[in-house]
Amino acid sequence: MPPQTAITPTREENYPEWYQQVIRAADLAEVSPVRGCMVIKPWGYSVWENMQRQLDDMFKATGHVNAYFPLFIPLNYFEREAKHVEGFAKECAIVTHYRLIPGPDGGLVPDPAAKLEEPLIVRPTSETIINEAFAKWVQSYRDLPILLNQWCNIVRWEMRTRLFLRTAEFLWQEGHTAHATREEAIEETHRMHEVYARFAEDYCAIPVIKGPKTAAQRFPGAVETYTIEAMMQDRKALQAGTSHFLGQNFAKVFGIEFLDAEGQRANAWTTSWGMTTRMVGALVMTHSDDDGLVLPPRLAPVQVVIMPITFKAADPAAVMRYCESLRDALKAMTYDGRPLRVELDARDLRGGDKVWSWIKKGVPIRLEIGERDMAQDSVFMGRRDRGPKEKGAIKRAEFLATVTQILEEMQNGLFDKAKAFRAQHTNVIDDKDAFYEFFTPGSGARTSEDDRPEIHGGFALTHWSGSEQVEEQINKDLSVTIRCIPMEGQVEGAHEKGVCPFDGKESPQRVVWAKAY
Amino acid sequence: MPPQTAITPTREENYPEWYQQVIRAADLAEVSPVRGCMVIKPWGYSVWENMQRQLDDMFKATGHVNAYFPLFIPLNYFEREAKHVEGFAKECAIVTHYRLIPGPDGGLVPDPAAKLEEPLIVRPTSETIINEAFAKWVQSYRDLPILLNQWCNIVRWEMRTRLFLRTAEFLWQEGHTAHATREEAIEETHRMHEVYARFAEDYCAIPVIKGPKTAAQRFPGAVETYTIEAMMQDRKALQAGTSHFLGQNFAKVFGIEFLDAEGQRANAWTTSWGMTTRMVGALVMTHSDDDGLVLPPRLAPVQVVIMPITFKAADPAAVMRYCESLRDALKAMTYDGRPLRVELDARDLRGGDKVWSWIKKGVPIRLEIGERDMAQDSVFMGRRDRGPKEKGAIKRAEFLATVTQILEEMQNGLFDKAKAFRAQHTNVIDDKDAFYEFFTPGSGARTSEDDRPEIHGGFALTHWSGSEQVEEQINKDLSVTIRCIPMEGQVEGAHEKGVCPFDGKESPQRVVWAKAY
Repeated sequence: MPPQTAITPTREENYPEWYQQVIRAADLAEVSPVRGCMVIKPWGYSVWENMQRQLDDMFKATGHVNAYFPLFIPLNYFEREAKHVEGFAKECAIVTHYRLIPGPDGGLVPDPAAKLEEPLIVRPTSETIINEAFAKWVQSYRDLPILLNQWCNIVRWEMRTRLFLRTAEFLWQEGHTAHATREEAIEETHRMHEVYARFAEDYCAIPVIKGPKTAAQRFPGAVETYTIEAMMQDRKALQAGTSHFLGQNFAKVFGIEFLDAEGQRANAWTTSWGMTTRMVGALVMTHSDDDGLVLPPRLAPVQVVIMPITFKAADPAAVMRYCESLRDALKAMTYDGRPLRVELDARDLRGGDKVWSWIKKGVPIRLEIGERDMAQDSVFMGRRDRGPKEKGAIKRAEFLATVTQILEEMQNGLFDKAKAFRAQHTNVIDDKDAFYEFFTPGSGARTSEDDRPEIHGGFALTHWSGSEQVEEQINKDLSVTIRCIPMEGQVEGAHEKGVCPFDGKESPQRVVWAKAY
Repeated sequence: MPPQTAITPTREENYPEWYQQVIRAADLAEVSPVRGCMVIKPWGYSVWENMQRQLDDMFKATGHVNAYFPLFIPLNYFEREAKHVEGFAKECAIVTHYRLIPGPDGGLVPDPAAKLEEPLIVRPTSETIINEAFAKWVQSYRDLPILLNQWCNIVRWEMRTRLFLRTAEFLWQEGHTAHATREEAIEETHRMHEVYARFAEDYCAIPVIKGPKTAAQRFPGAVETYTIEAMMQDRKALQAGTSHFLGQNFAKVFGIEFLDAEGQRANAWTTSWGMTTRMVGALVMTHSDDDGLVLPPRLAPVQVVIMPITFKAADPAAVMRYCESLRDALKAMTYDGRPLRVELDARDLRGGDKVWSWIKKGVPIRLEIGERDMAQDSVFMGRRDRGPKEKGAIKRAEFLATVTQILEEMQNGLFDKAKAFRAQHTNVIDDKDAFYEFFTPGSGARTSEDDRPEIHGGFALTHWSGSEQVEEQINKDLSVTIRCIPMEGQVEGAHEKGVCPFDGKESPQRVVWAKAY
């Protein structure tokens, strides 16, 4: 019999259900009564706030400023860019009326007299309305570049939703920039692509592969889309952030024109880039285990939790004072350039329930402190990157001297573990049959004896000639897509010439194929 | 001839137009092509970010955590609370469809097959959906209190809009709390009312009067609404923040029930409280002058701007180095507990244009630095609370030693000035004719010789018996409302018994009457 776990089912037993249960046990979010929308609960929102703070600092350090544009977009804006409308304006929330009146059945109904002449679309993304504003703001090359970011909510009508990963409404940031030259805009696209990769790896502890998307997977209206792709523990890929070079597509449609230094009229070049609350889902799926959430210390809302054990203590107040003094000492420290986040949990709960509640919430370091620990001037420490029973006493002074190192060690440990997992499930495959077998359930390392969802496959590094037909066929056969065309230095063994195993044509490099969220 | 000003018209000439021009000159925001919605530009958004950061800290210091609830609210939620639906569900944005299809004219139209069974309302406020969630979360008295806050966008369909003060979409925070007892909920209502007052006075430098609203002016569905009321420079009142005691109204409608310590079922008591981007408008209207925006130092995106004068300099690079070193020295300092916000403006612009651009943006301290200043190891300083030509040199070391004191002096000076202005235009009026005269254009201190909007009136401290009929009549006659019933200690001379000059009945105290935004 396997050891009991805090989360039922385990990852192996049923990965999608395990994901929902981890979120529930950590109290991150819940499904709302509004179709497709979620409620982000305080613990989940706090993780998002930490992500926001770090990303916002990185955006500002690269010269961007925040602004805010309307939630509603006139329908005709979408109609102007053909691919964009194709990609976004179809499944969206449409505002048609602006007043309610009493209806025949006693309830309220939209007032036919208050029907909008032109419907408004709840923004699925803001390229159109922001580029329209840029057109007004830009007259001369001196007005460029414009480097903006917006934090906001977004709506894309989704039929099959999953908390954080796919919801009708989600939160994100969208960067929008305009430049005088193609080169500058491309440079910006790469700069923000790199910011996303650094954020994912250094803060979320999620290793990513950087590279452009294929034409079929591009952002609607973009000339080039750069992505960072991560591997989840069910070996599927998750697109974690994208940076788009929009060329002059939107600038031409919305008329972003300027006089250059030589007095010639020219269209600007624009970019956009976004990262969303989906990243919270990626965090859950990358690091969590069968006991619940595991948070990278840099993003954890609480990095150290202190649990006083006053039950049966001769002098409970003394234990509390010892814990409070420890809390104050920790709060005066910094980790990753910010004050250490410490919680003293004095709730009236059974000790075991209390400890498990913090394990399931993914807090990196737990301290249980009773009279004996106090007498020995020590703390009794549990780490979220170790088993729930692997706990031990260390001297208070030693703990204070090493706590930030321990956190950093855990941060790096999570990254290394995720990287090793990815390496283990990334295969160079140069043969069609092997490729099909890799992505076929029941053919992998694990054979399933029942009908539970099975974890299989991974990343296949396989040559591709550039044929969209091949790409489509494989998607149709296996639900596998090209996640990205890895850039130089990203993936060992990807950058050699070869032959596409599907159509026998020459291929400049291997690309990353996977099933994906 | 009056001295020329940077803003045309002046406040005296045309206050509403002056307001628009100050916003334009400071580049705070602009009207968007989407009816009723505004674009908050980087300078305006940055002021809002500073407000957010401070308020968020104050909310967290009082035990609140952030969360996020859906943008859309099912229509039937509003229908449950009679007053709430009356107040909010009438003029709102209504989502009726979720898909577009090609229409007869080539454009896109809402797909009749994708009509929602129940329309969704874009949230005008979130009491309904949040209290509905509370009902699920609360079982026992141990689950209480719940102390949440949400930062989000809000839509209330408005026909006559004005940047920041009244727009169809705006940004705000909304606090929502649930408590086991009436007393706790009332205490929370007062606590947040006080937080708003402190924020308005200590950060926005806007003096406010605290007190409950009359029944006619309450939040729809509240038992009691507490407001902070400020006086703008046209002597009108502006409601700057409200804190609502909701009693058990929403708890009963949405079923927030719990077992108390004695095992009895009881309904919770809830509160809500909000402050919005309207506060940016209040800031503009309180402090700005005929040369443009004036920002209180604690909220200014840039507190010190350094303008190197390199034109004609023998060694421009040396001047730049001197400025850069000054910037670095300033950036290492803190003011109000945060790093000093400093900008080095090396743009290639005429010196006069550059100086005026920062005056119009309201930056507290301007430093113009040329070779002579460098040679004398000094800086040439202008302060936004003094005339544009009242500038002078002071030694660099002295400036660095006193800059935070100067900022604090300016912060306090703005508050004192606004308070003196309010005192000057607050009249104790115990006579009906004098009251009517006070609020009638052309009868005040200033007589208008043309048809430009005239500044008149102010706050009248006048007895009121509690009659809603009187309140209605005066609103009808003069467009004057009771802004609040000032609490003890808020307004000198308000807390003595008297007689209402309108109906001759006894009155427990004077209340604040004014025209309002």
